[in-house]
Amino acid sequence: MKFLSFRFEDKLLYGVKVKREEAAWNIVRIHKELLPNENVPATLIEGIQSGMELQETVRKCIRAAEESGSSSRYKVAFSDLVWEAPIPRTPKNVICVGKNYREHAIEMGSEKDIPEEIVVFTKAATSITGDYALVPSYEELTSGLDYEGELAIVIGKKGKNIPRQQAYDYVFGYTIVNDVTARDLQSKHKQFFIGKSLDQTCPMGPYLVSKDEIPQPGNLSIVTKVNDEIRQDGNTKDMIFSIEEIISTLSKGMTLEPGDVIATGTPAGVGKGFNPPKFLKKGDRVKVSIQGIGTLTNEIGE
Amino acid sequence: MKFLSFRFEDKLLYGVKVKREEAAWNIVRIHKELLPNENVPATLIEGIQSGMELQETVRKCIRAAEESGSSSRYKVAFSDLVWEAPIPRTPKNVICVGKNYREHAIEMGSEKDIPEEIVVFTKAATSITGDYALVPSYEELTSGLDYEGELAIVIGKKGKNIPRQQAYDYVFGYTIVNDVTARDLQSKHKQFFIGKSLDQTCPMGPYLVSKDEIPQPGNLSIVTKVNDEIRQDGNTKDMIFSIEEIISTLSKGMTLEPGDVIATGTPAGVGKGFNPPKFLKKGDRVKVSIQGIGTLTNEIGE
Repeated sequence: MKFLSFRFEDKLLYGVKVKREEAAWNIVRIHKELLPNENVPATLIEGIQSGMELQETVRKCIRAAEESGSSSRYKVAFSDLVWEAPIPRTPKNVICVGKNYREHAIEMGSEKDIPEEIVVFTKAATSITGDYALVPSYEELTSGLDYEGELAIVIGKKGKNIPRQQAYDYVFGYTIVNDVTARDLQSKHKQFFIGKSLDQTCPMGPYLVSKDEIPQPGNLSIVTKVNDEIRQDGNTKDMIFSIEEIISTLSKGMTLEPGDVIATGTPAGVGKGFNPPKFLKKGDRVKVSIQGIGTLTNEIGE
Repeated sequence: MKFLSFRFEDKLLYGVKVKREEAAWNIVRIHKELLPNENVPATLIEGIQSGMELQETVRKCIRAAEESGSSSRYKVAFSDLVWEAPIPRTPKNVICVGKNYREHAIEMGSEKDIPEEIVVFTKAATSITGDYALVPSYEELTSGLDYEGELAIVIGKKGKNIPRQQAYDYVFGYTIVNDVTARDLQSKHKQFFIGKSLDQTCPMGPYLVSKDEIPQPGNLSIVTKVNDEIRQDGNTKDMIFSIEEIISTLSKGMTLEPGDVIATGTPAGVGKGFNPPKFLKKGDRVKVSIQGIGTLTNEIGE
């Protein structure tokens, strides 16, 4: 199931992609008009956090809309909505794995940068934005704005000290994150937080795809284009630390919560890796595509 | 005004220290019983986030209790309550400044560790705990559990690109944070997040003191004791980056929000700085005292 959050008629709503249509089922409206007595969450994050069988609930909603005789009333065409990040506000900062692809670690410095232990930092929860949102160029703050296309895990169940073999039990699904980074701030301030946390530098989406649709998250092609030039062309099978290892290591002593987003690292081909570097500038259009999820598109604004 | 959050009769409540008594005004009860029609926030964080004149509201509550003829009904003795962190859950991760005292930077390595630019990392919001709470020893995860007594700023107003001269306009008040750190995890994982984010490793409290009571936050003595041995004996005047600089730099491009907590760094004397190191072990009692705020006490548990 491909979940999305969106704005329509000035309201934050959520839904599910209609099969073979460029439109979303408007779950909030179906709930209100057709199933007012059902327990249907008001937002996607609420649905994930409630621990309910969200897919079951949503399927019931879609059935009700299809059988209503006016199903088009319960669809919103993508051309009519504003995309929001599937989880517009995470319960804590977005958790990010650094240098999780060998060739990327090398392009960031040298072979010495290949980590022996997982490297984890965060992006402020305020940095999240949606598909098609403008990412400011921050010209007054940085001359090294860079893209990083990444597969992101969305946690579905509270857990701590999760064994590797049970890691997927705690996954709700997957989305795409562009971990936009101010390279000069990242290196100047040593710890990555400042260079990673400017407002609107964490585009996320377009969909949050439930895990049943992505049986092999450790084998997905991931491609980033800038103005249609392919910059990153990787596969999640090349991660140094697998999804199971990431979840297991992070949860040692630290509680993971439903709605937490973990970006799993970026493959080689970031702007900084080129000589001379190819940093982002106003008007650039960045597209991150991951097999089975879709394409996350953002333009660099003023 | 000294605000606190606490549990009493199984409810999360908040209040204000009663002058010259070891007790709190139970604002939630006063609201319910004496001023049901007043707009009084249900939690301290809600009061900060609402943007209302929280002190004015609370003063009105205290007056009503004093004039009720049964003021003791509206007080909770400290001996009867369980302390919670004043802000038990921050809106994003706890923001922390690293190596912000010269001598501490040196004890962590050498003179080369004195930062030229501010170093910022985060602690997971799930790591927050209260005064007198047990901090687990995490013996299976670390053999280098360490304390770091720190002055923490609590943001009172949403802001971005805040000029230094206006920094204090965005401060609600101050509290104490013990930035408990697993040193081996901190260095093994390069970025500090993992070593700083174990559950219950961010004791906070006992009070959130409103800024009017602390006119000179840049000149406060800060003392950390372990089992009554003085380990850290510093003063906030020795910060490398001042409170104004911290707020101004952090808010460049990143929105600060009411309820955000910024720990401003720790003075020299952490366990790692001794030869041999003096790390924390089960049964140790750590006390961090800051002038004008109080003492934050935590014991290391199982």
